[in-house]
Amino acid sequence: MNDITMRLNADELIKMALREDISSEDVSTNAVMPEAKAGEVELIAKQDGIICGMDVYERVFKLLDENTVVEKYVKDGDAVTKGMLMAKVKGDIRVLLSGERVALNYLQRMSGIATYTHDVAQLLEGSKTVLLDTRKTTPNMRIFEKYAVKCGGGQNHRYNLSDGVLLKDNHIGAAGSITKAIQMAKAYAPFVRKIEIETETLEQVKEAADAGADIIMLDNMDVATMQEAVKIINGRAKTECSGNVTKENIKNIIDSGVDYVSSGALTHSAPILDISMKNLHAI
Amino acid sequence: MNDITMRLNADELIKMALREDISSEDVSTNAVMPEAKAGEVELIAKQDGIICGMDVYERVFKLLDENTVVEKYVKDGDAVTKGMLMAKVKGDIRVLLSGERVALNYLQRMSGIATYTHDVAQLLEGSKTVLLDTRKTTPNMRIFEKYAVKCGGGQNHRYNLSDGVLLKDNHIGAAGSITKAIQMAKAYAPFVRKIEIETETLEQVKEAADAGADIIMLDNMDVATMQEAVKIINGRAKTECSGNVTKENIKNIIDSGVDYVSSGALTHSAPILDISMKNLHAI
Amino acid sequence: MNDITMRLNADELIKMALREDISSEDVSTNAVMPEAKAGEVELIAKQDGIICGMDVYERVFKLLDENTVVEKYVKDGDAVTKGMLMAKVKGDIRVLLSGERVALNYLQRMSGIATYTHDVAQLLEGSKTVLLDTRKTTPNMRIFEKYAVKCGGGQNHRYNLSDGVLLKDNHIGAAGSITKAIQMAKAYAPFVRKIEIETETLEQVKEAADAGADIIMLDNMDVATMQEAVKIINGRAKTECSGNVTKENIKNIIDSGVDYVSSGALTHSAPILDISMKNLHAI
Amino acid sequence: MNDITMRLNADELIKMALREDISSEDVSTNAVMPEAKAGEVELIAKQDGIICGMDVYERVFKLLDENTVVEKYVKDGDAVTKGMLMAKVKGDIRVLLSGERVALNYLQRMSGIATYTHDVAQLLEGSKTVLLDTRKTTPNMRIFEKYAVKCGGGQNHRYNLSDGVLLKDNHIGAAGSITKAIQMAKAYAPFVRKIEIETETLEQVKEAADAGADIIMLDNMDVATMQEAVKIINGRAKTECSGNVTKENIKNIIDSGVDYVSSGALTHSAPILDISMKNLHAI
Amino acid sequence: MNDITMRLNADELIKMALREDISSEDVSTNAVMPEAKAGEVELIAKQDGIICGMDVYERVFKLLDENTVVEKYVKDGDAVTKGMLMAKVKGDIRVLLSGERVALNYLQRMSGIATYTHDVAQLLEGSKTVLLDTRKTTPNMRIFEKYAVKCGGGQNHRYNLSDGVLLKDNHIGAAGSITKAIQMAKAYAPFVRKIEIETETLEQVKEAADAGADIIMLDNMDVATMQEAVKIINGRAKTECSGNVTKENIKNIIDSGVDYVSSGALTHSAPILDISMKNLHAI
Amino acid sequence: MNDITMRLNADELIKMALREDISSEDVSTNAVMPEAKAGEVELIAKQDGIICGMDVYERVFKLLDENTVVEKYVKDGDAVTKGMLMAKVKGDIRVLLSGERVALNYLQRMSGIATYTHDVAQLLEGSKTVLLDTRKTTPNMRIFEKYAVKCGGGQNHRYNLSDGVLLKDNHIGAAGSITKAIQMAKAYAPFVRKIEIETETLEQVKEAADAGADIIMLDNMDVATMQEAVKIINGRAKTECSGNVTKENIKNIIDSGVDYVSSGALTHSAPILDISMKNLHAI
Repeated sequence: MNDITMRLNADELIKMALREDISSEDVSTNAVMPEAKAGEVELIAKQDGIICGMDVYERVFKLLDENTVVEKYVKDGDAVTKGMLMAKVKGDIRVLLSGERVALNYLQRMSGIATYTHDVAQLLEGSKTVLLDTRKTTPNMRIFEKYAVKCGGGQNHRYNLSDGVLLKDNHIGAAGSITKAIQMAKAYAPFVRKIEIETETLEQVKEAADAGADIIMLDNMDVATMQEAVKIINGRAKTECSGNVTKENIKNIIDSGVDYVSSGALTHSAPILDISMKNLHAI
Repeated sequence: MNDITMRLNADELIKMALREDISSEDVSTNAVMPEAKAGEVELIAKQDGIICGMDVYERVFKLLDENTVVEKYVKDGDAVTKGMLMAKVKGDIRVLLSGERVALNYLQRMSGIATYTHDVAQLLEGSKTVLLDTRKTTPNMRIFEKYAVKCGGGQNHRYNLSDGVLLKDNHIGAAGSITKAIQMAKAYAPFVRKIEIETETLEQVKEAADAGADIIMLDNMDVATMQEAVKIINGRAKTECSGNVTKENIKNIIDSGVDYVSSGALTHSAPILDISMKNLHAI
Repeated sequence: MNDITMRLNADELIKMALREDISSEDVSTNAVMPEAKAGEVELIAKQDGIICGMDVYERVFKLLDENTVVEKYVKDGDAVTKGMLMAKVKGDIRVLLSGERVALNYLQRMSGIATYTHDVAQLLEGSKTVLLDTRKTTPNMRIFEKYAVKCGGGQNHRYNLSDGVLLKDNHIGAAGSITKAIQMAKAYAPFVRKIEIETETLEQVKEAADAGADIIMLDNMDVATMQEAVKIINGRAKTECSGNVTKENIKNIIDSGVDYVSSGALTHSAPILDISMKNLHAI
Repeated sequence: MNDITMRLNADELIKMALREDISSEDVSTNAVMPEAKAGEVELIAKQDGIICGMDVYERVFKLLDENTVVEKYVKDGDAVTKGMLMAKVKGDIRVLLSGERVALNYLQRMSGIATYTHDVAQLLEGSKTVLLDTRKTTPNMRIFEKYAVKCGGGQNHRYNLSDGVLLKDNHIGAAGSITKAIQMAKAYAPFVRKIEIETETLEQVKEAADAGADIIMLDNMDVATMQEAVKIINGRAKTECSGNVTKENIKNIIDSGVDYVSSGALTHSAPILDISMKNLHAI
Repeated sequence: MNDITMRLNADELIKMALREDISSEDVSTNAVMPEAKAGEVELIAKQDGIICGMDVYERVFKLLDENTVVEKYVKDGDAVTKGMLMAKVKGDIRVLLSGERVALNYLQRMSGIATYTHDVAQLLEGSKTVLLDTRKTTPNMRIFEKYAVKCGGGQNHRYNLSDGVLLKDNHIGAAGSITKAIQMAKAYAPFVRKIEIETETLEQVKEAADAGADIIMLDNMDVATMQEAVKIINGRAKTECSGNVTKENIKNIIDSGVDYVSSGALTHSAPILDISMKNLHAI
Repeated sequence: MNDITMRLNADELIKMALREDISSEDVSTNAVMPEAKAGEVELIAKQDGIICGMDVYERVFKLLDENTVVEKYVKDGDAVTKGMLMAKVKGDIRVLLSGERVALNYLQRMSGIATYTHDVAQLLEGSKTVLLDTRKTTPNMRIFEKYAVKCGGGQNHRYNLSDGVLLKDNHIGAAGSITKAIQMAKAYAPFVRKIEIETETLEQVKEAADAGADIIMLDNMDVATMQEAVKIINGRAKTECSGNVTKENIKNIIDSGVDYVSSGALTHSAPILDISMKNLHAI
């Protein structure tokens, strides 16, 4: 994760997470360790997967004590295998113990998403179709989860409601027609925004392409219909396939020739990747 | 979720999540709907499960516009079935559209955890063993996720490092022995804290019970060893079984006679429950 | 200003501005008015101009006391003339006095920007060229100032560094060439971003258009060169004229046939529009 | 700007301004520069003027990366001329690019105010009359703008409603008379506050002086009337001339013998001073 | 307490205090009262004293639930006697229980300060000497404690380091002399500030008066010396007696003829006034 | 105070306290010292007592300028005597002056509580009874005040409403009986919480012990009744004596054989310990 993003946009969230876990003090650790004592602990992969969040993991300890040293042997996006030594953390043992859970909660979840995304992206390999995430992220985790999708080999859809235009059925209804919705969006949105519109029928696809949409979402269409849609659009707009895309059905989508396929499951249902801290010892 | 908790502890997190999704404005909605327009939308279950987060779902819309009305037909902890109408939301259509994703992101995740917890808790039915969560929650989601575990039929372990004492191997090592660790914790911790200690062998179990531990965690023991441990303790302390507990292996644990079994998977790996908002129309 | 934006994104800034002006209490008012007393005051234009910020003006008083009533006779984007009654504010006189300065500070500055923008936009009337703002806004005022530009008849460029891609000479240098910079940006940026690139020569213009830039900025070119650039691009990308655009020289730009012209002066150097509150009296 | 003020009162505002401009990441820079790379850039004056905000300019980069080095060749209050090299900034090129706009937005605005203030203060040279600012500052910019006025050679009026007493016509009306208003303010306000009161007629001036006002504001009086007022007061209170003071009419005011003249234009209508960052190169 | 001050400056502190006491939920109350239930409780004085903080007390409950009703029978500054019914609070019993401690913590401390201040101020009755507080307040309680001093009959000294000038021995040392320190302060400080200077000898008193100090602090002088100082000053400046002023020795100070006497004990050592909530019952 | 607690939980409060005292700048210091100047000042005890808050004292200066050095000659919990040199602080004299008051406000109050607690705890020496604090702390000072109680030789009761269960008469009333209240709390509260219940009669004591309470509070009972209660409980639960415990009456309580005695006065009515900063000089 970029240093500036970490500092400006992630630090406050990490500190909040630390305060969520330490609302006054780490009673257990402080009871048995009244004084600082130097120690070292190992970060070990307990499953195969794609790692993501190493900088966030490090930052958790640095925010508790800037003298903590994290020697990293893997970097975000790397594949790890069960048993692999990923890093060593050196510092006051109390800091290592008090920061462990929050550091792992971030690292495991981000790596879980990267791993799941990587598995899905693999299925698209060899095709021109690109895998996208959605806004179905965990509240207050978007900056970490969208980054994890990229580490896993996916690309990001819009970040939020403010930085991308996606006109859905209700927007189209309010505007009166697909054409009008696109015109209103072009007139209103900052001119650097691409205009994306959701379609459910081939008639809608045609209208959207004619009206100058930049991206046309093909919502819950079968493969044959999508192929037809791609033909109608004929390069005038990018195409995105959406709607309950899973590992199981994604392979078929390639045949449709769409440019992008988006999946909410990448962020809302990936299980964590199991990683643990072991062999803490004084040094 | 209790009203006071919502207001004091959840509101700020919900507002942050809304700002994460709307950093300046909902461009799509504002482009096509310059003026307020009253509407109604339905909340529909798309899977069977246990619902959790209805108050949070409502609060998202209320924080955007306090005039929004949410008619709820189910309450937290209720079982829902696919297709069931769970609620109607009435208000300015722009509010319904702009709040939809954040509201669902909370509701789906909390319901996913409640549903998964309920499934596991079912397996313990008929036994005296109680299901517990852990601190393996998503950063800045603990207050929502711990509540979801309760809605699903689990009980909460300590909330964080400050409100419970759990002496692990590193704490024991620092103190010198199990007995010393327990003594130091009793001397240091606020007197309302129960003292829990982690054990890996029967010798440790015996020492912990003799030293007056309130709760003894049996870490990664097999069923036979746990049965022996329960005998050694003989009611002098509560027992907690911990270590990679899953839906698959939890049934065996009952036979060991432990009081509690804790599972990180409840919060770190439950998939979401699919729920959607449908049939938005002007009123 | 949209209600949701006001609540999520503007409210905190307005409250901060109020605390900047009232760090403990309004000593003067509290000294002479120990008790609440109902009153009314008029908002009067003291110059001709385009009004912007009426909702923000109202919100200042509402945040101090939600019972304050602001009867608005003009709305954002309207032209006002010297002496015109723009609104009446009714409420506790202490609230009217304590909120006056912050309310006017917002209203006058936003109206100043809208007025200046309107004057410049007038000069483009009849042409296809659209007036744009820049990121040269006052720190912590962007949400208000970008909105004011729209009220004045301009359109917004990107909101910030995160929601738009603009590759300048230093980015091009780092990438190695215009073509490589565009490729890297397309690979990295969320797929809903348009790619804009800055050019200084016709060779660069050609390379940018060939490489698939969505928008080509023509930086500090003379009118003849811009006309040539537009020809080279030939509809393959939008064009933006940038560089010390002022009221004085903007008319010439129209002839160049560029799609957009951006001006930092709209937000960084517009003088305020003079507006005052008069005739406060008890009711 | 004093280091303590920077840290306690300015830092949070600067960080907010950076987050306003970087809500997730600097997409353009990160696309083409995945790794840190040392570089240097020059800060160049593009207009003659008085410089203000050099420490704030430096702080913007330090807050992004504390290893950034800013070599300053001018200090706040210095006169600069077009083309002058004001500073060199050395650090990670990504930091130089991502911080540029916010750093310049502060520096240009603060220098614009210092320059305008200096121009006005020059007109008062040789007289005893001192130039003052007002509370007509940009919301959430007061700490920077009041400081800029001082750098330009003006003095500060009260900082806000809490730290100074200024009784205007409405306060006088509420109290019943000028005498009563002054008595109530003396009884209520912390005893370290001077009491200032606004007057519009010579009768009011006399009553204010008799009642022990510390400062008497002469509101919208002509020069002759102000001369008369100064005579009536006869050293019993300081005098402040207020009301649409501009560069054009300020010279006449000197003749009136008032101690202070206040001008809202210093902060609400000064154009920026043009300054730019040039010649970025790797080192 | 003024409504605007409550909202802008006190609300956030009160909410923080509530979160300090309820970091996740009120476990005891929520365990036994899953549902809202209307109730009423009485606020009873358990000691004689001067009451202060009734609005803050009310606000605590309103911030938890805006439907709570507080019927107040006394107002800030009133004398109460042991056993007196001061208010009734009506609302959800859970709100009454969860807010009780924080509400009383504010009310008891503020009333304790008001009571102690009143006792000291009584001793000054009949003299012209006014009682002042200091900056020796509890961190993050200043707005409440300075207000309590006023309710008890004292007056406020400066609020903080930013809104008043007080030149102590170290400032004088840095400036070079009393005269220079006063000149530098007059040149630097906003012109609405009075200049106060600390003196320890009669020579210093004379120099301070000659140099135009507005207020002269007589630090740790005996009564005879203070009388002499007052003579030397002869009305040219106000005088403040400072230094370990207590209930016991304050009476002597009157004879010295000083205008003000300041006491840190008012805020740093006043014991609380005992007040309790009784007779909670359902309604 | 533990470093992690300082950083996560105390730092923000200390910074708020500094901003409370320096809302824009230290006018007096900045007027006479425009430039940094190295200096040293001594921290001197002016009364005998137990010291607490040395790390917080140091942190105040470090937060203003991390280069400030505090040489500490005493540590929290140490006894100091009048005149003792406790520390030297070295750094920019402006930092020493601007931070002095806030640093002392923390140190004096925390030391006052430690001293008072120590005096009371002395009275319990030789008995098995342990002294406890309560939640009657100053708003937003709990983390400092509870720590001070420990430094003075007391132990902490629950930190807040969320981390301890204490069932009072109103909770018992709502539940229906003592037995039911205990059952409901055991079913609801996280399983690491001890259940404490308040009793006023011996019948209640018996019911509470039979129902499995972990701690039984004996509220406002005389010594004889408490002795009887201890007999009835017979080791089945811990006992806490509560209700207007003071230095004067605490000795009698020992005879009752209770395990704990709690006193609100430790935090709500301890006077400060007088400490001052002296002999500031340039170095």
